[in-house]
Amino acid sequence: MLRHSFTRCARLPRASRVLDLVASLSTTTAQKAAANRAVIFTDAGNPAEVLRVQSYDPPSSPLADSVKVRFRLSPINPSDINVVQGVYPATPMKMQFGGDEANVGGNEGLAEVLEVGSAVKGLKRGDWVISAKPQVGTWSSLRTLRAEDVIKLPAESLSEVNPPTAYNMLHEFVQLKEGDWVLQNGANSAVGQAVIQIAARKGIKTINFVRNRPDIDHLMSQLVQLGATHVFTYDALSDKSLAKHVKQWTSDNPIRLMLNCVSGPDTTAMTRLLGDNAHIVSYGAMSKKPLSLPTSLFIFKNLCAQGFWQSRWYQQHSRQEREDLMKTLADFKLKEPEHEILDLSAEPSDEAATQRLRHVLLKMEQGFGKKVLLRLG
Amino acid sequence: MLRHSFTRCARLPRASRVLDLVASLSTTTAQKAAANRAVIFTDAGNPAEVLRVQSYDPPSSPLADSVKVRFRLSPINPSDINVVQGVYPATPMKMQFGGDEANVGGNEGLAEVLEVGSAVKGLKRGDWVISAKPQVGTWSSLRTLRAEDVIKLPAESLSEVNPPTAYNMLHEFVQLKEGDWVLQNGANSAVGQAVIQIAARKGIKTINFVRNRPDIDHLMSQLVQLGATHVFTYDALSDKSLAKHVKQWTSDNPIRLMLNCVSGPDTTAMTRLLGDNAHIVSYGAMSKKPLSLPTSLFIFKNLCAQGFWQSRWYQQHSRQEREDLMKTLADFKLKEPEHEILDLSAEPSDEAATQRLRHVLLKMEQGFGKKVLLRLG
Repeated sequence: MLRHSFTRCARLPRASRVLDLVASLSTTTAQKAAANRAVIFTDAGNPAEVLRVQSYDPPSSPLADSVKVRFRLSPINPSDINVVQGVYPATPMKMQFGGDEANVGGNEGLAEVLEVGSAVKGLKRGDWVISAKPQVGTWSSLRTLRAEDVIKLPAESLSEVNPPTAYNMLHEFVQLKEGDWVLQNGANSAVGQAVIQIAARKGIKTINFVRNRPDIDHLMSQLVQLGATHVFTYDALSDKSLAKHVKQWTSDNPIRLMLNCVSGPDTTAMTRLLGDNAHIVSYGAMSKKPLSLPTSLFIFKNLCAQGFWQSRWYQQHSRQEREDLMKTLADFKLKEPEHEILDLSAEPSDEAATQRLRHVLLKMEQGFGKKVLLRLG
Repeated sequence: MLRHSFTRCARLPRASRVLDLVASLSTTTAQKAAANRAVIFTDAGNPAEVLRVQSYDPPSSPLADSVKVRFRLSPINPSDINVVQGVYPATPMKMQFGGDEANVGGNEGLAEVLEVGSAVKGLKRGDWVISAKPQVGTWSSLRTLRAEDVIKLPAESLSEVNPPTAYNMLHEFVQLKEGDWVLQNGANSAVGQAVIQIAARKGIKTINFVRNRPDIDHLMSQLVQLGATHVFTYDALSDKSLAKHVKQWTSDNPIRLMLNCVSGPDTTAMTRLLGDNAHIVSYGAMSKKPLSLPTSLFIFKNLCAQGFWQSRWYQQHSRQEREDLMKTLADFKLKEPEHEILDLSAEPSDEAATQRLRHVLLKMEQGFGKKVLLRLG
């Protein structure tokens, strides 16, 4: 039983509200002991079995090139689950806990700078940062990080790193202009919702696919409110008239970009809606099935299938480019997806925190849940 | 029974020998009547059932912008079979035969210019040309074609249009330099053999896959003689040590280009041998199965899957660029793949020619045959 273990934050319109919330929670919990925890695992496996919460001693002052930060909110993303399962091509961060080494989960997180090394430039106490380096173990609280591995956020910025994925996928593959069309699946994912909003601000139309579910009408109207042009469930793909409708809507402007985080047969069916010279850009595979495409699409429709990984983008771009991207995204003032904050810092013991975490992980396995943000310190 | 119906031309080293052969055959058959035939079909279907040979009246003199040609040798390519089956996205040429309209097969062919329209520049009687326009119905003899739709061949050129596919795939996707590696399947296809030779001339190494067959050792040594670095059957893909060997051979030079004319599971397995940022370029799907790839390859290996279609290349390039490509290829002096010339012009009647053609088509269905070149006039 979950016994109201979540703080529900339905649709925070701006990150500043997240920051306000963080600040208020921080005041409350700063008085408690043992509010410096990490979510760790020794061996890869089922997250609800192998993950546990562990208190740890705060790090000492940062070296000259580093900063001491406190992670405030760290999402549990599908890819983080895959890392714990040992099926993601990334090595988790290792840390010492009372003499034993363990892996710390988490790839993304919003952190506050508490202390700055003597040689660090461009960062000061009180700044908000995210990690530019993958797998730093964001499911933790107090940490020291190298200054070059963090990206400073504009004051009014978002706490999420999904919008960069959305923005870059809309800009790096096809030169889109107002009136152009984009096709996407998993449209209610954090990335998908950012795609809808960024596209809408630029006058780009989106055809969005989501899984059918009990509250499908509610979800569809939410996505339309965000700016989605059309929303369908995958069931619509078996209706032959869909392709005809799409042809009418797009007329002389065939669809040249499709964003995929699902793969499998439904995704293959979606490609029938694409025009010549289209790009399929994949950033996930929630179906756990391969991307399977008729070879004729490549040859005769001149389709191009590629992937996008925000971690690689960070590696290939300068600090200035990263911060410029954050500023661009802040200007969009995107609505964040609905999420739930799981505050593990307030639990009376590591054991109690572990139990609560595992309950939530079991619930997440069933899908359709809101995004979960961890709070550990 | 085929009763030695083929003229076997094992490995003509240069196209000039094909031209010599054409010339000699031409002298012999020029004296016969009814040596102006086409291979036609009314409705799409099984080639061995729907294709028939039909004599037709020679066309009159060409219009000002056209040329009159005689097709000398026209290959039966897998894609031509697909057009006849009605499963290829191309509309065959329609012609009138005694008041009835029928489709003429054939996308490629070597033709001799017999007569030139008054406004045509850059072409003269005796020139050798191929068609730059797809589906002109090359399984025919005397024809008039628009001058802008033909490409003049250098005197020493090849009779085939597969080398352009090979050359362009090696040049248009990845900047290859000496010592780089290329992976390909269907390596004994006409395109595959051209890939091996062009790559070898440029110091590019090739790892080639072919289907297992009774004379596999013979085929492997043939491909090595052409310049193949390594040749394997698809069975080798189930041997885990292969990936290790490939890693050793390529060391710091991981494979960035894979050429695919097969698709299906073996092709998926081949992608494990690719390095980061590789391109998979598809130009066929002999397995008739889709190209199915783990989404993780796109995201984490930054793989890019594309297609190549020589017909599109011709459409997108100028006459000068097309002729330059032919000159470049002529300079390579590539060995042509083994082929068999099926001379249907010498048969006593259209019925006899049809019977002979259908025997050959049935044999082709079983695979492993040599390439067949049609002679119809």
